[in-house]
Amino acid sequence: MALKSFIEVRPDSHFPIQNLPYGVFKPSPNSPPRPAVAIGDYVLDLSEIASAGLFDGPILKNSSDCFHEPNLNKFLALGRPAWKEARTTLQKLLSSTEPTLRDNADLRRKSLVPMENVEVLLPIAIGDYTDFFSSMNHAKNCGTIFRGPQNPIPANWFHLPIAYHGRASSIVISGTDIIRPRGQGHPAGNSPPYFGPSLKLDYEMEMAAVVGPGNELGKPVDVNQAADHIFGLVLMNDWSARDIQAWEYVPLGPFLGKNFGTTISPWIVTLEALEPFSCDAPKQEPQPLPYLAEKISKNYDISLEVKIKPAGQKDSSVITKTNFNHLYWTLTQQVAHHTINGCNLRPGDLLGTGTISGPEPESFGCLLELTWNGQKPLSLNGTTRKFLEDGDEVIITGSCKGDGYTVGFGTCEGKILPSLP
Amino acid sequence: MALKSFIEVRPDSHFPIQNLPYGVFKPSPNSPPRPAVAIGDYVLDLSEIASAGLFDGPILKNSSDCFHEPNLNKFLALGRPAWKEARTTLQKLLSSTEPTLRDNADLRRKSLVPMENVEVLLPIAIGDYTDFFSSMNHAKNCGTIFRGPQNPIPANWFHLPIAYHGRASSIVISGTDIIRPRGQGHPAGNSPPYFGPSLKLDYEMEMAAVVGPGNELGKPVDVNQAADHIFGLVLMNDWSARDIQAWEYVPLGPFLGKNFGTTISPWIVTLEALEPFSCDAPKQEPQPLPYLAEKISKNYDISLEVKIKPAGQKDSSVITKTNFNHLYWTLTQQVAHHTINGCNLRPGDLLGTGTISGPEPESFGCLLELTWNGQKPLSLNGTTRKFLEDGDEVIITGSCKGDGYTVGFGTCEGKILPSLP
Ligand SMILES: [Ca+2]
Ligand SMILES: [Ca+2]
Ligand SMILES: [Mg+2]
Ligand SMILES: [Mg+2]
Ligand code: NI
Repeated sequence: MALKSFIEVRPDSHFPIQNLPYGVFKPSPNSPPRPAVAIGDYVLDLSEIASAGLFDGPILKNSSDCFHEPNLNKFLALGRPAWKEARTTLQKLLSSTEPTLRDNADLRRKSLVPMENVEVLLPIAIGDYTDFFSSMNHAKNCGTIFRGPQNPIPANWFHLPIAYHGRASSIVISGTDIIRPRGQGHPAGNSPPYFGPSLKLDYEMEMAAVVGPGNELGKPVDVNQAADHIFGLVLMNDWSARDIQAWEYVPLGPFLGKNFGTTISPWIVTLEALEPFSCDAPKQEPQPLPYLAEKISKNYDISLEVKIKPAGQKDSSVITKTNFNHLYWTLTQQVAHHTINGCNLRPGDLLGTGTISGPEPESFGCLLELTWNGQKPLSLNGTTRKFLEDGDEVIITGSCKGDGYTVGFGTCEGKILPSLP
Repeated sequence: MALKSFIEVRPDSHFPIQNLPYGVFKPSPNSPPRPAVAIGDYVLDLSEIASAGLFDGPILKNSSDCFHEPNLNKFLALGRPAWKEARTTLQKLLSSTEPTLRDNADLRRKSLVPMENVEVLLPIAIGDYTDFFSSMNHAKNCGTIFRGPQNPIPANWFHLPIAYHGRASSIVISGTDIIRPRGQGHPAGNSPPYFGPSLKLDYEMEMAAVVGPGNELGKPVDVNQAADHIFGLVLMNDWSARDIQAWEYVPLGPFLGKNFGTTISPWIVTLEALEPFSCDAPKQEPQPLPYLAEKISKNYDISLEVKIKPAGQKDSSVITKTNFNHLYWTLTQQVAHHTINGCNLRPGDLLGTGTISGPEPESFGCLLELTWNGQKPLSLNGTTRKFLEDGDEVIITGSCKGDGYTVGFGTCEGKILPSLP
């Protein structure tokens, strides 16, 4: 029989007792932020559960102060044994057969807050944010668009999970408006470069791993132990200004074309909750070098969807349907590669997967690919789009279908506001 | 008559009363870190000065708690008026004619600590680290080496100060050993890529600006107000593994070739202390776009020198003699460009200038240029180097010659340790 909570959870909810993703919220505008898990339409305030002494397992008994922090970083640093213990404690506490919380009206009132009444915040303090480029179809499409169909994927791509450092300061929580960036674009002929609001504003459908315990500078993480350094996953929209990016990126990579904003979903779904949805990663050819060759090469079957709600319209249209399992390089290979030179990761670091495109045209994860750099506008319920227009909203969702329940990520949303005058 | 301190300062000291650079130190291994300024061979503990109530100007009177922090970020956030007030207070307190500290043996004993007895730490918590590419000679040399002498500088370079995001977690304080990174290099023919210790480990002679008050996401900083967002400068060595970098950097820029370690000098020299050494920046042709066109285009006359102390030798040899004033793009243009798309800077962010090479061969700021990618080994006191070898120490210094005094940066040093087996 499936595990069930005493809290009523709608069958299509992303947050059944099998999920219990972690976030940070404020119960009211003036209260300090505190950690929570999502359960159905409620958030469970972990600071209250800690204060009530209910984290009574051997590890958290003495370190439940991590739930009195304004972010999850301290909890992340504790590592997988503590995460497993917290999950066991919380699943028991929330289960239909356990009276401790179910029959304690006072504690229920203090600790369970309707989700619609709370403000969710960035759940982590992000020291460094790295963005990978791990979908082969995305790499192939981008290469074909920019360099032509001969050898669209650079030679290095099949040997290492390519990545660059992104901007940590401009990572925002789902629901934050994104102001259209201004910047330079390619000059036409001998004129000065274009300057003004980006004319090719795009989304990128990504997911991102949240780092748990870090590693010391100079000490690489073994690929077969890398999973212990990953706490969980969020949805991510790596907003991209294609015209700014195209003009600036030679020879040092993307900068202002990316760093004006990156949106993540508020609830971190743990690898434990995703484990039932794990699947084999694609076979890699050529074989990776030994430091990237892992005993178990694992992906997750996470259905991903992007909708656009065009400016002034009521309805949104689905424009991307893809899946996390299209990634060529695994999360654990990303961690092993990132640290092979001794680079240190810290708790709360964010590792974006890169745009997740599948092989079919409807599974392309950004407008650059869907409209083939604006050459084939997309039809959207009576209007068309080459790139994003002011007022457009982009809504990303992701979920895993279990037997009678859904483990989901909620949504990662953002609306485009016009550039400053 | 020149300002003089009651503390004896050797004529060649980098830290006369005209400088007063800011850092963070621990008086003993178990004491908490606290802010300081350097004066001669001493550090002045600002937490003690604050506790004694001596920051009595209108701004700091109510915010001297910033000197009880483990880093300078709170002080940096206060902005230029507070920095000026602190400078006035400290120059007065340390001057030969002022009895308050000079004649208070108890306070002197508590607040003045011999520099040789203290541990200096990273003075700032660095949220994001950006590295620019603002020296024309460096851009030209790299372009010539990698792409040939036709159009060595990419077309975008003269229109914008190119930059990329670096890794904040691996920024270390001068004196920290650097472990030679391992990684992949170009395959030879059809073999798999090289894997092992980097064979082309290099230094990069840079300086870096420390950001003071930040800007809100979505609100660019005007180029003519950008100086108010810069607190001061440090020396920086952006260690670079050229073989790793060359293989990984297409199309998203440098990653593992750089993020294994970046060293900065411990004392942040303020723009106020550097003001007497300001000079005109180079004329820019083509004219920059309006958002980069500044009323006053300022550089600083800072002599910079790199020495290598080869493994096993006692003496070091000077290998680079260059100057900050070789930079084409100014610090203020860098800030304006970085934020034009709405990207937010935060107090304590670090903005590297890029390698500072001058036109003469002896002014090239890295071994890649000095040895022309290993083709012309450098003679060093009886030995030779193409790139850095294990045990080599790299020592960067920088200073400005004033009338009877020197405003200097101390040193930025690091020694290469062998790769892990
Ligand atoms: Ca991306
Ligand atoms: Ca550099
Ligand atoms: Mg982004
Ligand atoms: Mg570096
Ligand atoms: Ni960063």
